[in-house]
Amino acid sequence: MRMYDLIEKKKRGQHLSEDEIRYIISGYLEDTIPDYQMAAFLMAVYFQGMSKEEIFALTDVMVKSGDVISLDHISGIKVDKHSTGGVGDKTSIVLLPLMAASGMKASKMSGRGLGHTGGTIDKLESIPGFNTSLTNKEMTTFVNSIGFAINGQTPNLVPADKKLYALRDVTATVDHLALIASSIMSKKLASGADYILLDVKIGSGAFVKNIEEGIELSKIMIDIGDSFNKQVATVLSNMDEPLGEAVGNSLEIIESVETLKGKGPKSLTNLCLVLNGVLMYLTGLQNTIEEGVIASKRILRSGAPWEKFVQFVKAQNGDVKAITYTSLLDKASKVIPVTSESAGYVGSINAEAIGKAALLAGAGRETKEDKIDPSAGIICKKHVGDSVKEGELVAIIHTNKEETKAIEDLVLSAYHIQSNQASKIPSVFGVVTKEGYIPIEGLEN
Amino acid sequence: MRMYDLIEKKKRGQHLSEDEIRYIISGYLEDTIPDYQMAAFLMAVYFQGMSKEEIFALTDVMVKSGDVISLDHISGIKVDKHSTGGVGDKTSIVLLPLMAASGMKASKMSGRGLGHTGGTIDKLESIPGFNTSLTNKEMTTFVNSIGFAINGQTPNLVPADKKLYALRDVTATVDHLALIASSIMSKKLASGADYILLDVKIGSGAFVKNIEEGIELSKIMIDIGDSFNKQVATVLSNMDEPLGEAVGNSLEIIESVETLKGKGPKSLTNLCLVLNGVLMYLTGLQNTIEEGVIASKRILRSGAPWEKFVQFVKAQNGDVKAITYTSLLDKASKVIPVTSESAGYVGSINAEAIGKAALLAGAGRETKEDKIDPSAGIICKKHVGDSVKEGELVAIIHTNKEETKAIEDLVLSAYHIQSNQASKIPSVFGVVTKEGYIPIEGLEN
Repeated sequence: MRMYDLIEKKKRGQHLSEDEIRYIISGYLEDTIPDYQMAAFLMAVYFQGMSKEEIFALTDVMVKSGDVISLDHISGIKVDKHSTGGVGDKTSIVLLPLMAASGMKASKMSGRGLGHTGGTIDKLESIPGFNTSLTNKEMTTFVNSIGFAINGQTPNLVPADKKLYALRDVTATVDHLALIASSIMSKKLASGADYILLDVKIGSGAFVKNIEEGIELSKIMIDIGDSFNKQVATVLSNMDEPLGEAVGNSLEIIESVETLKGKGPKSLTNLCLVLNGVLMYLTGLQNTIEEGVIASKRILRSGAPWEKFVQFVKAQNGDVKAITYTSLLDKASKVIPVTSESAGYVGSINAEAIGKAALLAGAGRETKEDKIDPSAGIICKKHVGDSVKEGELVAIIHTNKEETKAIEDLVLSAYHIQSNQASKIPSVFGVVTKEGYIPIEGLEN
Repeated sequence: MRMYDLIEKKKRGQHLSEDEIRYIISGYLEDTIPDYQMAAFLMAVYFQGMSKEEIFALTDVMVKSGDVISLDHISGIKVDKHSTGGVGDKTSIVLLPLMAASGMKASKMSGRGLGHTGGTIDKLESIPGFNTSLTNKEMTTFVNSIGFAINGQTPNLVPADKKLYALRDVTATVDHLALIASSIMSKKLASGADYILLDVKIGSGAFVKNIEEGIELSKIMIDIGDSFNKQVATVLSNMDEPLGEAVGNSLEIIESVETLKGKGPKSLTNLCLVLNGVLMYLTGLQNTIEEGVIASKRILRSGAPWEKFVQFVKAQNGDVKAITYTSLLDKASKVIPVTSESAGYVGSINAEAIGKAALLAGAGRETKEDKIDPSAGIICKKHVGDSVKEGELVAIIHTNKEETKAIEDLVLSAYHIQSNQASKIPSVFGVVTKEGYIPIEGLEN
């Protein structure tokens, strides 16, 4: 077998066998296939696509490229959740306690942030003392007793995807549904859960630009899950503005706490209720998604998720006082209001620009070596559809940086103020399960 | 400017500006753009193509990446000729003396062979003493006095094409017409001639598979020439069997000598007459291609081209006795007849397999470091359309190798013998000039 011939084959739109895909991925991981041949192959895949069988084979080879986690020592309904990534996405921090309070178990691995999107691990580490380097034994104990735990990623989970993604990232071959699907699913399959819920972000700055693409991606991921005997569903949610109000690490912890106490922003609360409702349906805890959402509302109101969150923070060595009295969390020295220069309505908010403003304020890292400032970030007070007066507050910057002009300008430029009324964007568009796509407006309120 | 964005742009089928193309090619040549990004870009070009403006810009940037030869010190009608490469292609060795005898000047650079196709320089070097490392001054003197000279390639001619071609060769991105056209034309434009004739080989083993593709490639190259104020024409010739009878270095010199004396194989003779006829038309020496071919026949019969060849060999320090009495050239110790195992008609001859057999016999090199055996090669006695009896001679192997079984098997397998009569293939299909495509059957005889 020669990589040259396999590039040629894919270029001509021909089908690759499982053996051929294994040869490509293992050869690339072992450095016998060079980056330039892999890059040409990926671009050929971009244009010619992959069949279902090819996608299944690719996913399987990637899963087996590293460790596969066994959750045999965890009892109960084992679920996992993944988001395709967004600005202000603190969903996991709210959803996992809600899932645990609903009778599910989640042994979750999360990443750190890079660029304009934050990472769950960074957010949790803004709670003093919080430990994200648990041993396998600690993970098992906490998940069995509390219902969930969140840990940093183990180094050897799907190494083929890591190497492949790094190459896709510099060769403009990220945005292909088959490659996105196999990348996401290989990581979830290696993580060992039986039920997998994927939060697919839709928006101008996201991988997935519209609902149609979101449905297509969802169907591929559900099919991959099926071929591995895993139950998969997706929620298509909106990333045309930051999720909730807060962007930045301790600011997002505060918002998560508020949401768990039933006082969070409606968009974040709704998304978490839908996600949990879908999971309750997927796992058979409820008969329909609608009943799952209704049950989730009741469970959130009961206060049980907040109790789970407190237990979780305590188990992972975090300072419970700091989440009980969030004023004890790190605070930025500067709190700068950003006010509108014109009157009208918020037509759109560039989520990516808000993410970059938070990064400039100190909330993120541009390279892996950068240190983050847990107190820094942006609070978006105005949302799409809101009316704005000239000089009215639209957002607040929290920062310890000397120079703040560029941050202010970037936040202001992210807000597009228009003269005609804009309609509010729903936080969730719909759900995709094995049965197909279900629009969700009715369930949201 | 970022290479990532330019890959993305081409991937989306957008037009690149001249500045963007210059950035890509110069960045690649200077190693600031890595192989893997260039490989992804080339594959995107394969699928999205290039506009005429992009092809012109690419060619221009490549021409300027190295030395551009000035032929100012050469007087007269300056022509150049290039073949897209084939097995047994000794056309230049016959055509250049014919061109010179027809009143044209050619300062030609040729390459060495690699793999299954031979190089003109290797063929000439089988003449004892022949010098292919002329100084610029010697080239000028010989071209002005004799009408032509043939030299090895200078190291710094179109370095961008060299580097790009090496990458295309391992990433399955060779067979794209825009890339082939700009690669060929950049080298010809850097060589300085005013009239450029391209021999486009058509066949199952060639870059160009059929006449339609050959016409398309020709039109691109003619347009490139036009944008540089050069007159370009192409001849579409057949490579569905080796050209002439001989494949191998001194064997091809012998066949060239025979052809220059009017006693060569019809296919080779015809091709050279058409090529020269087209050049006489292109340069204005004759009013039509037909008149050019008729004039070329007359000139060949006059013996003048043979005289030019003798002068050329003498000027470049070759042993004139060895071409006058070709029995003085190196001879292989073994001369092995290959006979047919069945009766019927030759349906096709796999030219690539014959080229590989010649390579195994010692006529070529697999790596740049290999030494070639000038005496080794294959003589194809039977051609497509010929009838064959069982046990009848189809080819002769000349070799000094110990083991010859594999060579014999390969030659035999190259011959497809069928029961029904196959028609002879013309050596030339047609000509493409600025005016369009002209089929050529009528002119050939």
